[in-house]
Order: sequence, then C-alpha cells, then structure tokens
Amino acid sequence: MTTDFAATRAAFHLPEGITYLDGNSLGPLPRAAAERIERCVHKEWGEMLITAWNRAGWMEMPLRLGDRIGRLIGAPEGTTVVGDTLSIKVYQALAAALALNPSRRVILSDTGNFPSDLYMAEGLIATLGQGHRLKLVEPEEVAGHLTEEVAVLMLTEVDYRTGRRHDMWALTARAHEVGALTIWDLAHSAGALEVDVTAAGADFAVGCTYKFLNGGPGAPAFIHVAPRHAEAALPALSGWLGHDAPFAFEPAYRPAGGIARMRVGTPPVIQMAALDAALDIFDMVDMADVRARSLALSELFIAEVERRCPELVLASPRAPEERGSQVSFRHPEGYAVMQALIARGVIGDFRAPDIIRFGITPLYIGEEDILRAAAVLEEVMRNRLWDDPACRRRAAVT
Amino acid sequence: MTTDFAATRAAFHLPEGITYLDGNSLGPLPRAAAERIERCVHKEWGEMLITAWNRAGWMEMPLRLGDRIGRLIGAPEGTTVVGDTLSIKVYQALAAALALNPSRRVILSDTGNFPSDLYMAEGLIATLGQGHRLKLVEPEEVAGHLTEEVAVLMLTEVDYRTGRRHDMWALTARAHEVGALTIWDLAHSAGALEVDVTAAGADFAVGCTYKFLNGGPGAPAFIHVAPRHAEAALPALSGWLGHDAPFAFEPAYRPAGGIARMRVGTPPVIQMAALDAALDIFDMVDMADVRARSLALSELFIAEVERRCPELVLASPRAPEERGSQVSFRHPEGYAVMQALIARGVIGDFRAPDIIRFGITPLYIGEEDILRAAAVLEEVMRNRLWDDPACRRRAAVT
Repeated sequence: MTTDFAATRAAFHLPEGITYLDGNSLGPLPRAAAERIERCVHKEWGEMLITAWNRAGWMEMPLRLGDRIGRLIGAPEGTTVVGDTLSIKVYQALAAALALNPSRRVILSDTGNFPSDLYMAEGLIATLGQGHRLKLVEPEEVAGHLTEEVAVLMLTEVDYRTGRRHDMWALTARAHEVGALTIWDLAHSAGALEVDVTAAGADFAVGCTYKFLNGGPGAPAFIHVAPRHAEAALPALSGWLGHDAPFAFEPAYRPAGGIARMRVGTPPVIQMAALDAALDIFDMVDMADVRARSLALSELFIAEVERRCPELVLASPRAPEERGSQVSFRHPEGYAVMQALIARGVIGDFRAPDIIRFGITPLYIGEEDILRAAAVLEEVMRNRLWDDPACRRRAAVT
Repeated sequence: MTTDFAATRAAFHLPEGITYLDGNSLGPLPRAAAERIERCVHKEWGEMLITAWNRAGWMEMPLRLGDRIGRLIGAPEGTTVVGDTLSIKVYQALAAALALNPSRRVILSDTGNFPSDLYMAEGLIATLGQGHRLKLVEPEEVAGHLTEEVAVLMLTEVDYRTGRRHDMWALTARAHEVGALTIWDLAHSAGALEVDVTAAGADFAVGCTYKFLNGGPGAPAFIHVAPRHAEAALPALSGWLGHDAPFAFEPAYRPAGGIARMRVGTPPVIQMAALDAALDIFDMVDMADVRARSLALSELFIAEVERRCPELVLASPRAPEERGSQVSFRHPEGYAVMQALIARGVIGDFRAPDIIRFGITPLYIGEEDILRAAAVLEEVMRNRLWDDPACRRRAAVT
C-alpha cells in the first residue's frame, strides 16, 4: 500500500458533522478546486479576458484533461477527450460504432444500464431511421445474447443501482468473437476501480467526471476511442471544435485527426478548471490501493448493516469482485429511510423503486465513517424514524 | 433613456489599462458572477453536497435561466431552456424542424452563417441519411432562394464576421409563405439587440450566453421552441433530463412536456451560477436603450476610424439598422494589426481571412473607450506597428 489516504482525505472539504456516502453521485469539493476556480475566474476570465483561450491554455484543456483521465482508465495519450455531457458522448460513441458495423442492426444492452444511455440510443435509432433495434436483456444474460446480429454491445460497467460489475474483459472478448463493437460507460468506474480499456480491448469508452473523479456539479464528460478506430470513427455531432482547422472557418466540415474530432462546441472552462484540480488528487494514489480499500470498507459496511438491520436486503452482489465501489440495500420504504438518514447527517441516496445506495470512496471515507453510518442506519430502522411525513415528502431529485 | 450605463459599467470587472472591444466573443467578468460562483462552490457544492440539487435549486436552473433569457428575446415563459453548447442546440432545433416538415429536403442557409451551425447540419444530414441537402447562398440572396423545396431556413441573425444583420421578421414571414420553418441563431443578438422571436414568428431560436450575455467562458447555450411546436418538436438528443420523469428511471424515453424535453444531460451548475449573476445586469437595462447607445458608439467608431485610418475598409454595413452590435474592418494584414492592438491594450479579434472585429457593448464601453481604440488603431496603422514578427506569429486561437 503506497497511497496515503490521510493525505487524500485532507485534500477535500468535508462539511462538519456529515458522513458522506454519496460520492458515487457527486464527489465532494477538493480544496484545490475552489482555489483553481477562483484563479480561473479572477486571473483568467477577469484579467486576461478573451486572450485566456491562448494565454491560460483554455483551448488545450479538453485534450489535456482527457489524457489525465486516460491514465486512470488505461487509455493511451491522445485517445480521450473531455466535453459535453455523458449522454452526448454516448450518442457520439454509438453513432460512430454503428457506422463502423453497417451491416448489423442490433444494439445490445441490459436492463441495468443507466436510462439516459438507453434514451440516447432510442433517439439515435429514430434519427438514423435504418431499422436499428435496442435489445435489452437481464445483466446476467448479456453474454448469451451476443450473437452475430449484434452491431454494438453498449453497457455500463457498474450498475448505478446495485453496484453489480460486468466482466469488461470477457464480454468485450465475446463481443469481438461475434463481430460486435463495444461501448463501455465508465460513469461508476473511472476513479473508483482499476480500469484498463486497452487491455480489455474496449472499442469506445465514455464516462462522467462528477462522481468518483470529484469534478464538481455538472462537470463535463469524457470519451475514449480505441486507436484502431481513431481515423474511421466519425463524431456525428460535428461541431467546429472537432474540425481540423476550427479557426479557418471553412464552410464544410473536415474532421480533426483522432480524438479531437469528438469535441463539439465551446467547452465549459470554469467546470474544466475544477476538474483539473480534482484530478491532481489522483496523482497521489495507486488505483490498486483505492480498489483494495474500497472493498475492505464495503465488506465492513455490509457486515455491520446486516448485523444491525436485518430488515434491509443486500441489493449489491455479495462477491466483492462482482461489485463496483458502492453498496446498495433494498427496503420498501427506501425513500423515507434515506431521508431519515440525511436528516441525521448520513448522506447516501435513493433510486426507485426501493434502493438505498451508499458510495464507498476511500479517498475521503474511512472506517469511522462506515461505522457511524451503520450505527445511524440501525437507529433509523430500529426506531422506525423513517415513518414520518417529513421523510416521505418527495423532492424533485430523489 | 432610462438605463444607467454608469451603473451597468460598475457591475463589471474591467482590467486596468485595457480597452475591451471583444465582448462579442467573450463578455467580461460581472462582479456579481465572481461572488455567485464562490457561493456555488463553497456554500452549495462544498456544504450541501448532493442535496444542493434540491436545496440550492440546481435542478431548476436550466428552465429558470431559460426564462430569464426568454425575456430578452421576446419568448414567453416556459419556452426557453439553457444547456449544452450552441452547436448541440442547433442540432436539436434542426432535427426537430426537419421532422416537422417531412416532405422537404432542403436546408437553406447562407455563407455568413457561423461554420459550426453548418457543420452540425452536415452531421445531422449524414445521420438522417434521407437525402437532405444544405443549400448555402449569399446573405443578400436568401429571400430569393426561399422556394417550396425549402424545409428549414437556418440563419444567424447577425454575421459573426461583418456584423451584417438579417431582417428576421421579413425572412421569417417569407419562409412561412413558402411553407418553410425557421431557426434563428441569436449568438450575436441576445443581449445586444432588441429581439422578439414571438413577434417575428420564429419557429426555433438558439444562442450562446458567453458573448453579449457575459455568462463566462464556456457558459451554456439556450434553445427556444415556439409554443405552437412545443408538443410536436422532439429533441433527437433524448437524454434523461428531458424525460417526463427523469428520476423514475424508466427503460423507455417519454419526452417531458414542452421545452423541458430539450434538456439532455446533467447541466454545468457552476457555469450556470455565473450566468445567473450575469443576467442580473439585464434586469437594470432597457434593451432599446442598449441598442440606441450601441448604434451611437458604432457610428462614432466608424467615423473616427475612417478619418484616421484610410487603409482600413469598412466590412460592416454602413446603414446602422443593417448592423448588429459590432464593427468590422478589412485589411490584408488584419491578423498582425490585431496583435499590435492587443499588445497596446486594445482588445478586439481577428477572423480569417482579413477581418478585424470590434464588439460594441454599451453595458461597459463608453465614448472614451471608442476614442482611445480609434487613436491606438491610428498609431498602429500610421507607424506600421503591425509589421513586426511578434505580431505575425499565429496563436492557437485567432
């Protein structure tokens, strides 16, 4: 173990009295991100104005930050770029992948995929109008449905509700055997697990940066294209910053070489500044250490909760290697349970219909947090503290 | 004149010694934006963490800010939403418009449109694969090419290079006569001119918020859909936040009612915070006053430059009503001229092949700025100060 988790914890601002187990939804504020944003706003936007695009390096940020994320997911330099939202990047990856496999019409995914990925596929299918079909199967049945009609296998590695983890290596290999391409959504993987898109053979990978990467609310997404597809994959959303010569203002589109073509419009500079600082923390860690500690903390949490709260049913896989970096339980009153927890300073979240989720994020969470969360959960369950109108009142974001 | 331009000027941070005539590319920092960002970062992200989506109103920001922009462009409440980049919003508007006019195949635009709008159309045409055609004509010839084969007329109201302004009312009326729909890109209009999309009859409008609206580098874009199309226009990029029930996590997409369906993914909260504060300044102004003062300052600038710099050729229309809120000149060494100006604290920008642009932004620019810029430009031209290797050296962003 070479990672100093006391040092990584000190790199975050964590509010007094809060046990934060929702870093799988929104990572907390890295102290350096606040400083970096202030510099971006005052020194760059405020003082350099338009010249900051060159002088402060704004124009290079999408590719530079892409490479920084690439190092965390096993992507070679120059194959990952930051921008837009994850939904947009899914659309680009899927459009490119379908065009690379033009004789087939099936997009295979699973019922555990994040709905926005599926919705974007629906939108693309309608726009293409070529009779593509989105085939959804149960997560355990994906391999069995990889047949020679599948154009693209599109999966999220770690299920957003249960934390169940797909075997990226095996499924990618199987997909390639039948001539299908793969798109891996790493929303719950990047910064949480050891990922190696190159070794796994992934064709495309996408992800967001506001969860385990701690880039801040609405931080931009990323997309990776395997080098073997770099010059053949077209972006579909062909914006000026993906043009080979954006400032030549040519009337016709010519894609930039490689991953730069996946850029679309003017990138969110202030959000990228926050992300840049958040990624500094990953320079301090070994992802193998992060994974080991995540599993240790997860095992502890499962054991404590099962011992203290028999009415909660583990929704996550019991085998550590089949889980991402979260632990979920089911309860029919899950929404109210989570509200009761939040009211007592333990923050996780709820996913319909009945799942309470807890993100296990070793960069800033330790054993004392796990034990406190389990104790508060026990108190809530034992005393039915969730059975309160205030806890049942639904908010816009649940 | 009811607008207090001394008060609006005081609302911005303007660097010492700089005359900033590039607010048509990136507006300067509103003092309140810096404070609002700090609050968003420290009090909301830092202290509220995930709960800020409800408690700090993050989730409502795209529609709330959309309505604030809507008031500046004549759009009724609930018909404008903020998010993504302008290129993405062009794609959505065009996809929706083409689907509403399914028997036609021509997208009419002009050679003065911003290239990214044209590139996005190219990408959409390729994705649709239905034989649509992008027809580009000279700006003056648009009306003559509005025939019954045109599905959609897609124009930027104000030309990014010359500042030439289309007659939105007349062209929209003519488009409707021949059964075409209209998409107006207001990138150089919103916050610069009086715009009334409703009175003009525009079907769709899009725009960016980092130019005359001063929302900051990479601030999100906006899209407006006329109420008569609200329930028929589909977003093409069908992301979870455009779903009727995003947090129900249903497997199939159901568009939200009205403009909310044009949302795609998780919006850039920190950028929206800056934009929110920037829009406060527009609560202090009457757009008719802004327009009147913009034209007065533009007339002064043209007269001064033409008197002092006979080798510069006016690229903008001479008639004030045919211009947006910028003044452009041509010179074969325009790039080097602009670099020489910037080196002397007068910031405008250059657009290939030979245009130097000056944004006229009365919220923070006055007669003294205009006179100083003209004097420095005269000094640069008279003494050939642009004829210097340092001025000819090209940067990434020109």
